[in-house]
Amino acid sequence: MLVSDLGEKGLLERLHRFCPPEIIGDDGACIAWAAPESSHLVVTTDVLVDGVHFSDATTTAADAGWRAAAANLSDLAAMGAVPLGITVGLAVRGDTPVNWVEGLYEGMAACLGRYATPILGGDVVRSPVNTISITAFGWGDPEMTIRRANAQLGDAIVVTGWHGASRAGLELLLHPEKGTILSAQTRQNFIEAHRRPRPRLDVREILWDVKSSMSASPLRVAGMDSSDGLADAICQIAAASGCGATIERGLIPMPPALTAWLGEETAIDWALYGGEDFELVLCLPPESARVLVGKLKRPGAIVGYITMEPEVWLRDRNGVYPEQELSRSLGFQHF
Amino acid sequence: MLVSDLGEKGLLERLHRFCPPEIIGDDGACIAWAAPESSHLVVTTDVLVDGVHFSDATTTAADAGWRAAAANLSDLAAMGAVPLGITVGLAVRGDTPVNWVEGLYEGMAACLGRYATPILGGDVVRSPVNTISITAFGWGDPEMTIRRANAQLGDAIVVTGWHGASRAGLELLLHPEKGTILSAQTRQNFIEAHRRPRPRLDVREILWDVKSSMSASPLRVAGMDSSDGLADAICQIAAASGCGATIERGLIPMPPALTAWLGEETAIDWALYGGEDFELVLCLPPESARVLVGKLKRPGAIVGYITMEPEVWLRDRNGVYPEQELSRSLGFQHF
Repeated sequence: MLVSDLGEKGLLERLHRFCPPEIIGDDGACIAWAAPESSHLVVTTDVLVDGVHFSDATTTAADAGWRAAAANLSDLAAMGAVPLGITVGLAVRGDTPVNWVEGLYEGMAACLGRYATPILGGDVVRSPVNTISITAFGWGDPEMTIRRANAQLGDAIVVTGWHGASRAGLELLLHPEKGTILSAQTRQNFIEAHRRPRPRLDVREILWDVKSSMSASPLRVAGMDSSDGLADAICQIAAASGCGATIERGLIPMPPALTAWLGEETAIDWALYGGEDFELVLCLPPESARVLVGKLKRPGAIVGYITMEPEVWLRDRNGVYPEQELSRSLGFQHF
Repeated sequence: MLVSDLGEKGLLERLHRFCPPEIIGDDGACIAWAAPESSHLVVTTDVLVDGVHFSDATTTAADAGWRAAAANLSDLAAMGAVPLGITVGLAVRGDTPVNWVEGLYEGMAACLGRYATPILGGDVVRSPVNTISITAFGWGDPEMTIRRANAQLGDAIVVTGWHGASRAGLELLLHPEKGTILSAQTRQNFIEAHRRPRPRLDVREILWDVKSSMSASPLRVAGMDSSDGLADAICQIAAASGCGATIERGLIPMPPALTAWLGEETAIDWALYGGEDFELVLCLPPESARVLVGKLKRPGAIVGYITMEPEVWLRDRNGVYPEQELSRSLGFQHF
């Protein structure tokens, strides 16, 4: 059955089962505001276009849905916010199978369900190109909002988890004949990292623990997520804060199998520029950073420090590789 | 200059001037929550596709932007909510003139500015089809939320203003040779009604006045906006409330020039099914409805009543026209 067989209203009715029943049927959805009184609203939005941001060649509808939801929840995590819900605007071709649309919503709901986040309505319209537009909103504490421009000279740069795994998973999906030296479990882990990334919504609570144990009030945290790559995140935080950074290549958390498979040069390239690992990159005073890394546990790690000069340098304490300047421009450019 | 000349980042930077500077540059936007403590969050979303919902043939970029913003604010008005902000997800062809994108944002900002509503960020991506996705946020009082399913037997049905004017404006834009009997001012009024509709965000405060003067607490109001047509709105409210309705054709507020130009049959057809007038259709107890209409002033009017049987009937108290059953199905159907 195709979307054109069902019509817009029929499709919308089918999708109602993914929303809490009490929000169905009005011009907007009402959300009880359960956040503390002093909190603020945090909003983020993403548009994904068929053939540009997802493709049936590498992504099932359910995976596209999961990834779309995860990317938006990751943006909330990167602001230190707690999710309240998302809205979904779907523009869809008439010749799209209804199964595909339902798979998309099932994937979104599976990801959102992990974080108790509802779909609070949306819109379905016809279009010559399938396009998914998600807006996620949450609440945050003004006292502990994570902002890119908050970094200061001397801050330690904390990375919350592995980098390069999502890029490795994409490679294995595109070229199943590659990576034969990897164990079946490792292959699966890489593919899952790409298909079902986990937004780091758990980090907010860990930061509160750090704050309590440090008795510093408020705890200043700069940061963003690494969805566009680790190098991009570090460069953006440094630029927004009017600083630079120095990163030690040996400290970047990479799955050991990545280096064994690809060699160090390619592994570090994928870790820095592969993107879509959806970890957080956080900058905070070194003492707080050490407490944070202790609570994050491995593979969370301090990878470097914020510096005064505006460049971002990748260094090798073993002296094997020359210093290298990192930039955003090696990353993916649209248009 | 085309979007492809500027690139995604260059375009985003140009669009920053339409956002409050304090929200720029993070993974999400933070909004201070200035609403009363007991209020709830109201969210609504719309997707507009080039060639389906707007077209350069009838709509300048600025008008498309105004209309997109107005439609979302109208949804907030239809919930009895006060706007907090919108996000804009733009999917755009590389060969789109940058002027067009800036015109779109200028139109949105012009409409939003009337209602002191900021653009709280968004996303810009490339796509084969220009697509605008807007999510609007507002706050509302749980005590006086307008819901479709709230209507009860005997409620009066109030329409807040003229219907048919937007459809008339579209006709004059598509066929400038028509409507020669209309004065230049009337032509302009119809065209403005289509190009620059005004969401009825003023009605919320009027309803509060009604509530105060009635000393009924809480005031029960059912309703929605008439963006998909007056007939559609009445049918949807009746269906959601498990009731029917009877409408008197002589009471439907139509611009007098509409009937003079088109004759009564076509005029009432456009008033009922033309759509995009962005007025509110509200159902409330007759006594409250009369107070509301007094405060709304003309052309606000009571057009009929909620009935027990499930049909929606259009009647003629003068006995010239036969009774006619109204349905949603004559309205615009996607796919």
